Amino acid sequence: MAEPARNRGAIDLLRERFGARLSTSAAVREAHGKDESYHAPQAPDAVVFAHSTDEVVEIVQICAALGTPIIPFGAGTSLEGHVAALQGGVCLDLTGMNKILSVNTEDGDCVVEAGVTRKTLNEYIRDTGLFFPIDPGADATLGGMAATSASGTNAVRYGGMRENVLGLTVVMADGRVVRTARRARKSSSGYDLTRLFVGSEGTLGIITEVAVKLHPVPEAISAATCRFPDILSAVNATIATIQSGLPVARIELIDEISVAGINKYSGLNLVEQPTLFLEFHGTEAGVREQTQRFGEIAAGYGGGAFDWATKTEVRNKLWEARHTAYYASLAMYPGKKGMPTDVCVPISRLAECIAETKRDLAESGIEAPIIGHVGDGNFHTLLIFDPDNPEEVARCKAFNERLILRALAMDGTCTGEHGIGYGKLAFMQAEHGEAVSVMRAVKLALDPHNLMNPGKVVRI
Amino acid sequence: MAEPARNRGAIDLLRERFGARLSTSAAVREAHGKDESYHAPQAPDAVVFAHSTDEVVEIVQICAALGTPIIPFGAGTSLEGHVAALQGGVCLDLTGMNKILSVNTEDGDCVVEAGVTRKTLNEYIRDTGLFFPIDPGADATLGGMAATSASGTNAVRYGGMRENVLGLTVVMADGRVVRTARRARKSSSGYDLTRLFVGSEGTLGIITEVAVKLHPVPEAISAATCRFPDILSAVNATIATIQSGLPVARIELIDEISVAGINKYSGLNLVEQPTLFLEFHGTEAGVREQTQRFGEIAAGYGGGAFDWATKTEVRNKLWEARHTAYYASLAMYPGKKGMPTDVCVPISRLAECIAETKRDLAESGIEAPIIGHVGDGNFHTLLIFDPDNPEEVARCKAFNERLILRALAMDGTCTGEHGIGYGKLAFMQAEHGEAVSVMRAVKLALDPHNLMNPGKVVRI
Repeated sequence: MAEPARNRGAIDLLRERFGARLSTSAAVREAHGKDESYHAPQAPDAVVFAHSTDEVVEIVQICAALGTPIIPFGAGTSLEGHVAALQGGVCLDLTGMNKILSVNTEDGDCVVEAGVTRKTLNEYIRDTGLFFPIDPGADATLGGMAATSASGTNAVRYGGMRENVLGLTVVMADGRVVRTARRARKSSSGYDLTRLFVGSEGTLGIITEVAVKLHPVPEAISAATCRFPDILSAVNATIATIQSGLPVARIELIDEISVAGINKYSGLNLVEQPTLFLEFHGTEAGVREQTQRFGEIAAGYGGGAFDWATKTEVRNKLWEARHTAYYASLAMYPGKKGMPTDVCVPISRLAECIAETKRDLAESGIEAPIIGHVGDGNFHTLLIFDPDNPEEVARCKAFNERLILRALAMDGTCTGEHGIGYGKLAFMQAEHGEAVSVMRAVKLALDPHNLMNPGKVVRI
Repeated sequence: MAEPARNRGAIDLLRERFGARLSTSAAVREAHGKDESYHAPQAPDAVVFAHSTDEVVEIVQICAALGTPIIPFGAGTSLEGHVAALQGGVCLDLTGMNKILSVNTEDGDCVVEAGVTRKTLNEYIRDTGLFFPIDPGADATLGGMAATSASGTNAVRYGGMRENVLGLTVVMADGRVVRTARRARKSSSGYDLTRLFVGSEGTLGIITEVAVKLHPVPEAISAATCRFPDILSAVNATIATIQSGLPVARIELIDEISVAGINKYSGLNLVEQPTLFLEFHGTEAGVREQTQRFGEIAAGYGGGAFDWATKTEVRNKLWEARHTAYYASLAMYPGKKGMPTDVCVPISRLAECIAETKRDLAESGIEAPIIGHVGDGNFHTLLIFDPDNPEEVARCKAFNERLILRALAMDGTCTGEHGIGYGKLAFMQAEHGEAVSVMRAVKLALDPHNLMNPGKVVRI
């Protein structure tokens, strides 16, 4: 791919300023225009590697002056085409901003640059007695996780990024630098800009620093797997658990297809039945009590005996297997691709939503492992399709649309944690109605020339 | 006070449409231009009583067409002049919108009209096994609590309105009706409009319906008071409790002056020493365990024996006394007024902040009971002053300014839960810097003619 002529002015200025940290090589550009999704990638015209907020300001000012779009890039693990340079422009790679700026153990918080990944952070704070609970599976950057409002397995107990970001440093479309909040745990001082930028997917500004809450490592942690005769029994046991107020830390559904995939991919020997992966956090006595109560609930839905994993290594292996379920499922279908879905519904509707979805899958002749953060009412199907077969692609897309409309009809959302990118843009109106016009007004107020990751979240 | 000539056009149209539900009587107007604060009230030109979202739309459209400001009004219990009609206009009284629209016990949520108060809601759901934990002391409306991002004693465990509002129905400045979110517990679908309107104090739109999370009533609840030799010992015990990860549900500081006030006002017999009011929620065993651990921590800071209140009536009496502490303190100083302060700092700085504040109070010769939601790093002083003595007023204002700058220097906020209104407008720049310009851009995008509660939160 030849170097594009578009946006030459900005690229020339950026090269002058950043030298070798500005790349227009085809390989670098292509790697920065695609994420882990099935959506068509689109390479940016150039990639610039920033090392500080001040550098981001310079880059944004150059691009703003010349009308060049900017797309921020972290780990590239988004799932709805978030990083595709739909209108060309410059990709701003933030992975070089990987410093942990402060860890405040007494307050249980820390401030990191946007390119720090969740695993790097947890490794760094290992000896503090604190941990950062948000784990979207991939080892994403905290900037990217904030930008997509990520969550993951622990969200049922600890919340997602929305609940755990204390404040952000953001470079606005005109180069102004804004700090959205201070480190106090509570504030009612002005509009909640922190939450406005969490989930804004780079469309309102570039997140360069993230302050997050950290949580005390529980005195006792106990993980287990629990098999059920069928998927609805597992889901109903989950619903009853949540409704009982049991403060389970993780409660993850893995259907029998996904269990098979995990066994093969991660070398486990789980019985290939619908299974809940669970984790309980608390004091020794508290964890024992929670476990016993969950056991009573599960038994009422045909749940089998627990397989316990109290040792750290066994527990880590289990959750590592859970986190690679996406790749494990894909590995079962060589030559195929996967289309992940991501609806979330009020928990009272979850069993019904999954039952109808299973029926729809069967009727549509689509193979699709199901996994879910079921404690939140959030589940994923991974629709397996042959990328060279347009009919299969269309069938999966039609299925996803039906699934989303089903979730919306149940007062749910088209995306529990993956975000909109451009892959779900078409569903914004159905989900939000008139609220889309309010989002558009906010976007135009903060990015009047539509240069910040254009074509994502809201249509302009 | 004669009926004002300002905004006559809108008022005539509203009277035609709403008849007796439009009032221009001096008494009604004056009652709607003041809150519970010391800030100068300002009566609106008229008050209209709305009974539905559709009526709010009609009112907003009439006012928008004629350029008349609108100020929403709930219980009138705000503390920073939020409801003063600084530029005249129409006060929109929402207390007639007092229907509970749905209670979804299986999902642990409910939807109410904006005028429902927290006590009404908790009374209504009494038999469901669920409760709504946010209690700002006053029996505020849920619309008002959302608008000011209220919190209160339970926030340390359950969060405030920011964490507990699931979605809002909002009438925008041009009469559009927006629903900010559906009932799913998680979503990363578009900008977080819910959190944008929480804390927006009526300046971006009128909240007419509120969906909130409900929580299971704990199996066991245990409340206690624990005395300390001095205020810093109580604060340090709190800090140690929070840092240990103990999931205390309430941990409230009451200084010796406030204890005296409460004893007199609520007929209690507490020893007049700095005291923590505590509550533990959990299973029977869990509450026992939490209590024991707190006891060990407290003993390390000279904490005395607990006075227990496990019986519901005794517990209610205790918290009722806590909630009336503001009025109890005022009652100790007949003829005087009180200026409540509301800083919140990272908990590691709380003892230092309170110590410096006590010193400043002594040096300034100001009497001021101190109470605090200390588990969040949030505390209030109630500065007692003679309203007829301008020097005293000025001294208290200067003290409040020093207190706020002290909190900001500790990475804290000028208001943990009372909001900005017009009383704290002067501190927005010091706290937020460049972020104020972002807030202003959002305000102008959603309310271009500055008719929604003008003069509050951001200067236009």
